[in-house]
Amino acid sequence: MATILTTSNGHAPEMTPTEPSSPQPLRAQKSGDIRSSPKYKHTFAVHSERRTSCLSSDSLKSPSYAGFRNLMGLVLVVSNLRLMMENFKKYGVLVTLSGSSIPRGDWTWFGILYLLTPCFLFIAYAIEALAAQYAKSKIAERKRSEGDGDKDGHKETVGQGKRHLFSTWRVIALCHGFNASLMLAIATVVVYFYIHNPGLAAFAQLHAVIVWLKVCSYAFTNRDLRHAYVNADSAESALPSLYKSCPYPNNITLKNLSYFWWAPTLIYQPVYPRTDRIRWDFVARRAIEFIILSVVIFVACAQYAVPLLQNSLNDFSQLHLVNLLERILKLSTISLVCWLAGFFAIFQSFLNLLAEVMYFGDREFYSDWWNCCDLRSYWTSWNKPVTHFMKRHIYAPMVGRGVPPPLAQLITFIFSGLLHELLVGVPTHNILGVAFFGMLGQIPLVWLTDPLSKIKSHNGRTAGNLIFWLTFCFFGQPVAAVMYFFAWQAKFGQDNRPEWPLQGTGKG
Amino acid sequence: MATILTTSNGHAPEMTPTEPSSPQPLRAQKSGDIRSSPKYKHTFAVHSERRTSCLSSDSLKSPSYAGFRNLMGLVLVVSNLRLMMENFKKYGVLVTLSGSSIPRGDWTWFGILYLLTPCFLFIAYAIEALAAQYAKSKIAERKRSEGDGDKDGHKETVGQGKRHLFSTWRVIALCHGFNASLMLAIATVVVYFYIHNPGLAAFAQLHAVIVWLKVCSYAFTNRDLRHAYVNADSAESALPSLYKSCPYPNNITLKNLSYFWWAPTLIYQPVYPRTDRIRWDFVARRAIEFIILSVVIFVACAQYAVPLLQNSLNDFSQLHLVNLLERILKLSTISLVCWLAGFFAIFQSFLNLLAEVMYFGDREFYSDWWNCCDLRSYWTSWNKPVTHFMKRHIYAPMVGRGVPPPLAQLITFIFSGLLHELLVGVPTHNILGVAFFGMLGQIPLVWLTDPLSKIKSHNGRTAGNLIFWLTFCFFGQPVAAVMYFFAWQAKFGQDNRPEWPLQGTGKG
Repeated sequence: MATILTTSNGHAPEMTPTEPSSPQPLRAQKSGDIRSSPKYKHTFAVHSERRTSCLSSDSLKSPSYAGFRNLMGLVLVVSNLRLMMENFKKYGVLVTLSGSSIPRGDWTWFGILYLLTPCFLFIAYAIEALAAQYAKSKIAERKRSEGDGDKDGHKETVGQGKRHLFSTWRVIALCHGFNASLMLAIATVVVYFYIHNPGLAAFAQLHAVIVWLKVCSYAFTNRDLRHAYVNADSAESALPSLYKSCPYPNNITLKNLSYFWWAPTLIYQPVYPRTDRIRWDFVARRAIEFIILSVVIFVACAQYAVPLLQNSLNDFSQLHLVNLLERILKLSTISLVCWLAGFFAIFQSFLNLLAEVMYFGDREFYSDWWNCCDLRSYWTSWNKPVTHFMKRHIYAPMVGRGVPPPLAQLITFIFSGLLHELLVGVPTHNILGVAFFGMLGQIPLVWLTDPLSKIKSHNGRTAGNLIFWLTFCFFGQPVAAVMYFFAWQAKFGQDNRPEWPLQGTGKG
Repeated sequence: MATILTTSNGHAPEMTPTEPSSPQPLRAQKSGDIRSSPKYKHTFAVHSERRTSCLSSDSLKSPSYAGFRNLMGLVLVVSNLRLMMENFKKYGVLVTLSGSSIPRGDWTWFGILYLLTPCFLFIAYAIEALAAQYAKSKIAERKRSEGDGDKDGHKETVGQGKRHLFSTWRVIALCHGFNASLMLAIATVVVYFYIHNPGLAAFAQLHAVIVWLKVCSYAFTNRDLRHAYVNADSAESALPSLYKSCPYPNNITLKNLSYFWWAPTLIYQPVYPRTDRIRWDFVARRAIEFIILSVVIFVACAQYAVPLLQNSLNDFSQLHLVNLLERILKLSTISLVCWLAGFFAIFQSFLNLLAEVMYFGDREFYSDWWNCCDLRSYWTSWNKPVTHFMKRHIYAPMVGRGVPPPLAQLITFIFSGLLHELLVGVPTHNILGVAFFGMLGQIPLVWLTDPLSKIKSHNGRTAGNLIFWLTFCFFGQPVAAVMYFFAWQAKFGQDNRPEWPLQGTGKG
């Protein structure tokens, strides 16, 4: 900043002396003929050349706007502090730590589900172990017939073996399918009918869905590994070299499965890139982040979101649209905070913590989705574990079998929509279909915003990014949250209203 | 964004086919040995190498946060839209265009002052014209005595001339001083006692102060020019070469003065850098900007600031500090909007418009003060016309005469404080001294923040910038505005409360 005062042409440098006690001698100005004598200071030619204002469009150099960016952040913090003070004045402290509103039965069922769900993973292991045994016996059989030197018989045995394997695979697939579906069905039914609190219910359902996806991945991957193993002599080496250290069927062990059970990934691999050691300070930091963010989300919901949603019940029932819009805009800030905090808590803090403790090497759980200017890149970069699963086990095999990519994409989004509905509709005990159709509705939006991804200009990308934030975080999520909340209220009504005083004469 | 999907190691490129109808053939992956056969898609090694999360501190490359910056702007806009809706719900439209609350007498006095004030500038011109005549006669006298060849007599005449000139300058200075003081005194008295509306009063006072500064500059500059003219043969060429096209006393003309009267500067120069032509589209754009911003400021004050200030009267009288803090924080956003809009309206739109119409070349009315991280650079960059005046006519001459720079700085700030008090206290009819002591209080703050200007690191400069915004725009101005408003209320009380309905039972 000192340069403004000393090098701009025509400015006397006396305003910023380096030692406050001694005046600076006048330096020769940059432009040789503008020289002010020490004697006639009042005649100094301040205006000596044409210059433009730095905010004018015809200025040579655009100024930095870093100061305004800092100001934006400051204004956000200050105005939210103010809203927090206003909320405190209105409601006092609404956050209760007792958890007394959660029925005891909820905790019991949650515990049962939490212990029961992984058992199905071990049942899947058992199925795979049997399948591996079968494959090994097939290989041994083939080797024996080869040893007999009967080439034709060998081909026939291989052919027979392939047919047997194929029908055996059907049996194996059936077993896996039944196992996995049973687990998911049990979890869904228990959550829907027996776990009342939506928070606990959501955790239980999420746990079940994660384990279900892992079971599917385990089954699919081992199926391909087994086929490659059985067809070892006819196909070229078709497996990643990474797996060579643990070839099929050496990977079908309890230890291998347990690692996969806890690893922060939905994709089964016999071998994962590993780290050398656990950095316990890293783990501690991630744990603290996770705890703090969870508290922030909990407080944000209890203190800010719930009263706001309660207050908007009236407006909704009277369809007072302007008021409802104002409520949704207010809710959008809170939902944005919860969304960003939740994203960071899960994908940055929790998964990294898990990865560090499990010596798991590949920590790319997300990429910079906040910069994306089209919805396609958003969906493929915010939640990489699920994206990897979809690509590897659903999209790529379909495309590989000749399904047209747009159709494969549609099927993938349908599958994703069903999962979202399971995760949102079941815990709130209202299968509205909003989450499902929300996901399906992403497809036209993805195609609509695809052209934006090709824009290279800064302004174009900024516009795309703003459209993304607006549609997704300002209108998408708050509206969906409001719908599920209202459905909850409609179903459970008066009994579930929290017992804090509301402003004025009740709901107003 | 497409690069995320296609070049990151291990990602199958099938998700973004360039033609939706034909599947992309699998490309060879970057890492040579990770090759997935088209046959065993379920075994694709997604996790093939160690990677870090991009938000982790140990990641190799920090991601761009442009998306979050866009989000910040969006959240600001959305939350302020919401506040505007809430305000509209509460108060309806408070902005009245009739101006009926302004007494007729105000307009009359305003008109009188507006026409009267520049007359003093022409009186100053008359004084200078006489002084120029006197100087010319002195020069003629000296030339005659030189022509007589009397060197000793010449020196004595020159010495006499200098003493005469010096005493004549005292007379001239006295005339100028009386002229300028009279003008400022008349304007101040009229504004304080006769113009009731603070807006009109502020305009009238500002006009008077600007003309007063121009009179001072005119007097000081011509004094030095005259002295250089009279001492032409003894002093080396000490004036800027820019002035050669209009040497003293050729600059003492009505035309020259009129140009200075309207030029967007407070500093008199016989010659200014000029532009060639008027760009009328530029003028039109600046005019539209100015009008729109004036409307924005007017609406912001009438619709948002005044109700807020009214509502806080109770809290102030009861000294309810938490409430008062909450009110101040809410006011700070509005005052920030008014400040930024006012700055842009005056320094970017209005002064550029004036400069374009006057063919005025030097448009540097401000520099990027929003990036500054210490108060010294703020004060020297946000209002360059006043800074130039202070430096050229107050600070530099004092330092040139041997005044220690810190003392010169103090005197400059005292002078500035007096001007601010004139501009704020007189129109609000409450000379509280808040503006004066606010300006004086800048000096310790300037010295406190000076070390921050030496910090080169990005974080250090950001911290300094945030401190600047906080102290100056969040607490400095709103608190001052509140004080002057409350003083106004205390003085004029009930009679001046606007006649719009307030929420609830009155002031609540």
